[in-house]
Amino acid sequence: MIKIGIIGYGYWGPNLVRNFYSANECQVISVADSRDERLLHVKKSYPSINPVKNADEIIEDTEIDAVIIATPVSSHFHLAKKALLSGKHVLIEKPMTASSDEAEELINIANSMGLILMVDHTFLYTGAVIKMKELIDMGNLGNMKYIDSTRINLGLFQQDINVLWDLAPHDISILNYLVSERPISVNATGVSHTNNGIENIAYLTLNYNSGFIAHFNCSWTSPVKIRMMLLGGDKKMIVYNDIEPTEKVKIYDTGYDHKTDEDKKRVLIDYRSGDMFAPKLKTTEALSRMANDFINSILHKTSPVSNYEIGFDVVRILEASSMSLKNKGIEISLK
Amino acid sequence: MIKIGIIGYGYWGPNLVRNFYSANECQVISVADSRDERLLHVKKSYPSINPVKNADEIIEDTEIDAVIIATPVSSHFHLAKKALLSGKHVLIEKPMTASSDEAEELINIANSMGLILMVDHTFLYTGAVIKMKELIDMGNLGNMKYIDSTRINLGLFQQDINVLWDLAPHDISILNYLVSERPISVNATGVSHTNNGIENIAYLTLNYNSGFIAHFNCSWTSPVKIRMMLLGGDKKMIVYNDIEPTEKVKIYDTGYDHKTDEDKKRVLIDYRSGDMFAPKLKTTEALSRMANDFINSILHKTSPVSNYEIGFDVVRILEASSMSLKNKGIEISLK
Amino acid sequence: MIKIGIIGYGYWGPNLVRNFYSANECQVISVADSRDERLLHVKKSYPSINPVKNADEIIEDTEIDAVIIATPVSSHFHLAKKALLSGKHVLIEKPMTASSDEAEELINIANSMGLILMVDHTFLYTGAVIKMKELIDMGNLGNMKYIDSTRINLGLFQQDINVLWDLAPHDISILNYLVSERPISVNATGVSHTNNGIENIAYLTLNYNSGFIAHFNCSWTSPVKIRMMLLGGDKKMIVYNDIEPTEKVKIYDTGYDHKTDEDKKRVLIDYRSGDMFAPKLKTTEALSRMANDFINSILHKTSPVSNYEIGFDVVRILEASSMSLKNKGIEISLK
Amino acid sequence: MIKIGIIGYGYWGPNLVRNFYSANECQVISVADSRDERLLHVKKSYPSINPVKNADEIIEDTEIDAVIIATPVSSHFHLAKKALLSGKHVLIEKPMTASSDEAEELINIANSMGLILMVDHTFLYTGAVIKMKELIDMGNLGNMKYIDSTRINLGLFQQDINVLWDLAPHDISILNYLVSERPISVNATGVSHTNNGIENIAYLTLNYNSGFIAHFNCSWTSPVKIRMMLLGGDKKMIVYNDIEPTEKVKIYDTGYDHKTDEDKKRVLIDYRSGDMFAPKLKTTEALSRMANDFINSILHKTSPVSNYEIGFDVVRILEASSMSLKNKGIEISLK
Repeated sequence: MIKIGIIGYGYWGPNLVRNFYSANECQVISVADSRDERLLHVKKSYPSINPVKNADEIIEDTEIDAVIIATPVSSHFHLAKKALLSGKHVLIEKPMTASSDEAEELINIANSMGLILMVDHTFLYTGAVIKMKELIDMGNLGNMKYIDSTRINLGLFQQDINVLWDLAPHDISILNYLVSERPISVNATGVSHTNNGIENIAYLTLNYNSGFIAHFNCSWTSPVKIRMMLLGGDKKMIVYNDIEPTEKVKIYDTGYDHKTDEDKKRVLIDYRSGDMFAPKLKTTEALSRMANDFINSILHKTSPVSNYEIGFDVVRILEASSMSLKNKGIEISLK
Repeated sequence: MIKIGIIGYGYWGPNLVRNFYSANECQVISVADSRDERLLHVKKSYPSINPVKNADEIIEDTEIDAVIIATPVSSHFHLAKKALLSGKHVLIEKPMTASSDEAEELINIANSMGLILMVDHTFLYTGAVIKMKELIDMGNLGNMKYIDSTRINLGLFQQDINVLWDLAPHDISILNYLVSERPISVNATGVSHTNNGIENIAYLTLNYNSGFIAHFNCSWTSPVKIRMMLLGGDKKMIVYNDIEPTEKVKIYDTGYDHKTDEDKKRVLIDYRSGDMFAPKLKTTEALSRMANDFINSILHKTSPVSNYEIGFDVVRILEASSMSLKNKGIEISLK
Repeated sequence: MIKIGIIGYGYWGPNLVRNFYSANECQVISVADSRDERLLHVKKSYPSINPVKNADEIIEDTEIDAVIIATPVSSHFHLAKKALLSGKHVLIEKPMTASSDEAEELINIANSMGLILMVDHTFLYTGAVIKMKELIDMGNLGNMKYIDSTRINLGLFQQDINVLWDLAPHDISILNYLVSERPISVNATGVSHTNNGIENIAYLTLNYNSGFIAHFNCSWTSPVKIRMMLLGGDKKMIVYNDIEPTEKVKIYDTGYDHKTDEDKKRVLIDYRSGDMFAPKLKTTEALSRMANDFINSILHKTSPVSNYEIGFDVVRILEASSMSLKNKGIEISLK
Repeated sequence: MIKIGIIGYGYWGPNLVRNFYSANECQVISVADSRDERLLHVKKSYPSINPVKNADEIIEDTEIDAVIIATPVSSHFHLAKKALLSGKHVLIEKPMTASSDEAEELINIANSMGLILMVDHTFLYTGAVIKMKELIDMGNLGNMKYIDSTRINLGLFQQDINVLWDLAPHDISILNYLVSERPISVNATGVSHTNNGIENIAYLTLNYNSGFIAHFNCSWTSPVKIRMMLLGGDKKMIVYNDIEPTEKVKIYDTGYDHKTDEDKKRVLIDYRSGDMFAPKLKTTEALSRMANDFINSILHKTSPVSNYEIGFDVVRILEASSMSLKNKGIEISLK
């Protein structure tokens, strides 16, 4: 029985509490939040959970085995480091940290202490991503050529992070889970429509050695909500539309081959457009699967699906995107 | 009665012939194409039109008042220049020319000769764009903040121009028609999946002094056809979905205001999400309106809607995008 | 403070408990269900509520002011009658009773006892129906000409009632709420694909004196879920698509007028097809509004929106539909 | 080379002329229409075709082998009979005739004269229907359980036939092509919103011995255009949405089995909801395939796909629907 403390009971916290509360082989002991009304809310909904005002009460609680951090990004590193050093397994909300140096330090501590360090990239546990992973791994799509994602809505403007740090972690973690190649560089453009310089619209291109390309379109200022990803292989292509209640993943038997007509110096393209197939997807809640993965990783000392490598890569890419944004879109290499 | 010769009877030529054939106050005299089978096609469908093998037969025909050029981009400048110097009004398919220098030279000749020089940006004549122009000009959307366009499908890979030169002229001409401010610079990223180095996927960001931003996502390699443009003002926003058979233009009473809470150093955002309205659009064929605009401009010596300034700006932006693509996405200033 | 007992904790019961639990000026005292595991579920989720095995424990509880009945239809009459005779206000799940005679008897008892008798036609409290009621009452649609509803999915085959009794109460209650005229007769056709003779597909037409017509298409055997209602007036028409996450109600400025050309004996139709408008709808939970309406009706001795007349009319129409179904679709008059 | 005369150049006539004009092994000789402006239109578009004012000029033309009748329904019988008796093969627009007696008489004449008599149910030649026929014939859907069709829009009110005679022939011909069982009876309800008594909204149920059921919802008074058919088998189900530009036919691996739990007298339903599959469909024009089928049937003395049995069955069912409509929806047996 893993004993758990959760730090932060804001927007996402209640979802975490609900899922860990009903998970097996674990028990939610305490929830920390500095706001009294949030603690009252915990008390009312979960009489058995101990609401505490200070994160340290959880981190220093020797009864607790694992700490979940669902606070603003800027505090992730500090809290996670403290928790790890107190010998606790740690699950952090995405994005993992505010910098790749911070992420690296946490990874080093976790490794030296033999603790699980995991990042909550919930999308990796959705039926849609699980199915796409399966299809790509089986070679169904052929060689991957591109991923193009649009994640926009009339969203809550964040105060401390721009729209890429807020929304792109979903897409970058999916990308890194589905495609094994890693980007060599990024370009990002965008704009801030408020006077705090935090971009509310931004575009991110990831460049790869093989000619694969990924592009992310993120915005808090769209009149409609779009959550669509195109995944192109040279054999088949996928449209993953997360807004659809059913048929979220559509596989198109669509493709093209090219060869060069040497004499005429022309590229000859052979198009193919065929059937479409929408597989049935698992419908159990992704967050519940994520919670079980964390618990099982602790119990069996295994690496979770949403492991720290993915978490680190997301931060590294976001960090580079910020540098590109600040430098008029120039290409930033990923060391 | 304006007498017209049309050069090029490939993919778009038949549409031009059909519309000018049925337009008033004009007469299609000849159609030129180097391919015998295309001329045969002209002969069969339009017994009254003279099919000729050589463009010069049209350009040198003293009976002809106006020449329409629907050939590959690389030949636009040469043919248009010759036609203008022969005293003929000229309509060129988009994009106007292969470089802004060429476009400028044509404009200078047309001006000095007192001839109409027009570019066929057909989309400016669609019911959707006409309605959006009306709404924006009336101040309905408030100050324009962004345009974000996606124009992708499993498209015909072009041999001489990349996907931006092929597809973005539609969006850039719409943008320049709807928004009076002009971009100060561009960034472009993309990839070629063939061995000829011609990008089949590309992304273009246009940067503006005011904080307005425009972004174009163009691809010939999507399993599905998407033709969607988001237009955001600070009062209302539009979703223009050109694939929809009806309700192509949806106006959302959606917006946000921001102010800064000085003490807390926070940006306070006030969201608004309200009704949606889809106005009835004109359904007459855009190309027919374009044809009439060309004829009327000649008859009344007026400037057409799709004038050479828009045509020039499109080329200038595409040219800069090519430079950015070749230089790893760096910002290219528009002089 | 109204004290409430809820009988039946099956599919819908938990929703009722949740909403009355969080409503003001009321307190859920007991929940009755014959199944131990359901009572355990109550106990776990709501420690403050008393779980009882027998409905009579609620009906005979003198502390309780109002009883909510969420059991199978066949038991509604018996339980409601007993509760009313015990002096309790009663809210019954739809459909109100298994026959119009039963419904009438309950109404008479409630009236003579001065008690609130209400039926939970939840849809009347949705933002969509509230908005449509408003529009129709303001004369926006003109004279109502038809309502055409499709409510189909791969549904749970009911054991005791056919698909019309299961699904049509939603549509009939909406119809009777929106349109004041009442049908004079019904025709129904359908089929049972199981060997118990309970129709899983059925079609219902309601005939009216004025020429208004209503039609309902109900099925438990559709591969896709459709919840769509067309509402036609002679001035405007509505498409109400309950599956859409947003823009559920679209008002079309569409219509036609007709006049007769006396000489030619022809009907001349004048069509009109114009703008579309999708108003913003209230998004608070319909069931919560329903709960408050019940409580307020008790407190202020007023008639609720979902009153017993609507409940009675629904049963009367369903009863006639069953008679028509059993008699090969003949027209059954509504006395 | 089959020589063809076409009677009627109204709404559908031009489509017929265009397709037969470009078909092989046939030649369109004359087109008849009583309206001068229509004949002028023929003349202008097809200089080689002889426009004639009177249908008899075609019927009596000994050069002509086959006559196509695209006039109002009331004249079909008279013209077709005359043409057949003149030894000409006949293709009639749907619906075949105004009564089943007329249809029968035409069939008898055609048979005794050894002539092809065909009805233009164009939908049987669409890629969608061809694919569905293939799937059903291969047993993919299992035993057919129901067909449910909605065909509504803001349509042209017809002067001589009601909405069922206008729109349902499409659906009934598809039904009769896909399903071999024939209905034993019909019920129809509807309403006329004009003062000529011609129904503009109508609903038709077809009853079958096996428990299969078909239902058609037809209207000229919908604000939106819907062309959707659900086809349910006990193994799989299809949604055929003719409005979609692509993916018109979606096959759902959805179904249910039932068995009776003898003791509990309950029907136990076992649901299944699985993958969806949208096959690529042929995209060549249906009308062109129909034209070729007519010509080939004449040349090779074979029965066309859209044969007179289907044409006759459609009329027989429509006739019964009219009787049911006039008799308050009672069941009308199909002898």
